[in-house]
Amino acid sequence: MPRYRLVVEYDGSNYVGWQRQTNGVSIQQSLEEAIASYCGETIRAFAAGRTDAGVHALRQTVHVDIARGDPVITVQKAVNFHLKAEPISVLEVADAGADFHARFSATGRKYIYRILNRPAPPSLDALRVWHVPRKLNVRAMNRAAQRLVGNHDFTTYRSKHCQADSPVKTLGRLVVVRCGNDVRITAHARSFLHNQVRSMVGALKMVGEGRWTEEAVAEALEARDRTAAPPTAPPWGLYLADVDYAQADPAIE
Amino acid sequence: MPRYRLVVEYDGSNYVGWQRQTNGVSIQQSLEEAIASYCGETIRAFAAGRTDAGVHALRQTVHVDIARGDPVITVQKAVNFHLKAEPISVLEVADAGADFHARFSATGRKYIYRILNRPAPPSLDALRVWHVPRKLNVRAMNRAAQRLVGNHDFTTYRSKHCQADSPVKTLGRLVVVRCGNDVRITAHARSFLHNQVRSMVGALKMVGEGRWTEEAVAEALEARDRTAAPPTAPPWGLYLADVDYAQADPAIE
Repeated sequence: MPRYRLVVEYDGSNYVGWQRQTNGVSIQQSLEEAIASYCGETIRAFAAGRTDAGVHALRQTVHVDIARGDPVITVQKAVNFHLKAEPISVLEVADAGADFHARFSATGRKYIYRILNRPAPPSLDALRVWHVPRKLNVRAMNRAAQRLVGNHDFTTYRSKHCQADSPVKTLGRLVVVRCGNDVRITAHARSFLHNQVRSMVGALKMVGEGRWTEEAVAEALEARDRTAAPPTAPPWGLYLADVDYAQADPAIE
Repeated sequence: MPRYRLVVEYDGSNYVGWQRQTNGVSIQQSLEEAIASYCGETIRAFAAGRTDAGVHALRQTVHVDIARGDPVITVQKAVNFHLKAEPISVLEVADAGADFHARFSATGRKYIYRILNRPAPPSLDALRVWHVPRKLNVRAMNRAAQRLVGNHDFTTYRSKHCQADSPVKTLGRLVVVRCGNDVRITAHARSFLHNQVRSMVGALKMVGEGRWTEEAVAEALEARDRTAAPPTAPPWGLYLADVDYAQADPAIE
């Protein structure tokens, strides 16, 4: 059966997250229903990252099998047509091999977290940024971030509901930059634990406000104790920004 | 009576525009009601630019008289508190002299128009950009834009409902740049006619698509004939980006 790789952008504000849930509409359900409307098949969509409720995606990657076997441009146009009432958009479609799996073939994931750092609340960016009124010290945040980079037991910085077998992950990159009132945190790793990015951002925000030190971030990490973590940052500032795969697929432009 | 200058940001999507109308809620009404809730006075807000329904603002400037005479920081916090259910945010408040008028004291206005130029429709930027799927030639658009800069009769490029006495205006700057899939048009003038920016953008988009020439833009201008203009660009890509005043007020940070 022909397999496709889809790059998908979405506004997660009004969804229960990527994965199907009984308590509301998910991105997965909306996408699967749009594909079913187009091809008449019952299909299942697999994503690289199971984003939580309220979390957005700039380049989520998904794979689906569609027997009909249309050209990629037909698939893209048809699925976008059936998604037009929803804030979900298929940016790219490529042919994928039978051994390609959006989740298990992924070799890296990039997340971006956006903080709006100004006294006035957001208007145009409501539900797209975390509003932090107090002026953040971005250099201190970025120094503290470097204490989290590397191979660590991230028990402190993951949800207590996280289902991963091991809390040990390698955080490749964690960078904090300011552009005007926008403070942007970029995180890169092979994979992340549940709530790991938001939990790390919660700690870095405390450092930026001067309420936590760089040392406190490192000590909490070493404690391997979820109760040592500051409050987790809210979902609406988080974006799944990109997913890497080992072999560049020439069919993706 | 103490006069204040407010810098206001808003998402215009669900409003009938700046000005009070009988057919829906305006930014003006929402702002006036928020101020009334705070100070108990019936006040009137005057804006630098009367943005249309669906048009956004990054830095609209407004003046209001409030007898109560609170410090600027109190006014800002109180008005934002009463606006918290709406996508309207007061970014700055400054004391203004009795002769300051948000509209008549303005010496320049800057608008930004955003086009999302890619095949896939917007999701996160729905109602914040004009979606143009066909690849735009931005250099051709920018060359054509220069034919509109200067002192001209803009009859072709204004709404037939425009109430300005004269169609003659001086367009100071009109620049088209691309950043990835974002095509951004910046327009600067002392003042604009009704629908002037959106009408010029409609013409430039035709040039970008190769359906109009630079010459056609100039010839339509010279025709001084509204029917010579291509379709007006939609409101949701337009942002009132800034307003200039002759004397920098030291109270504005």
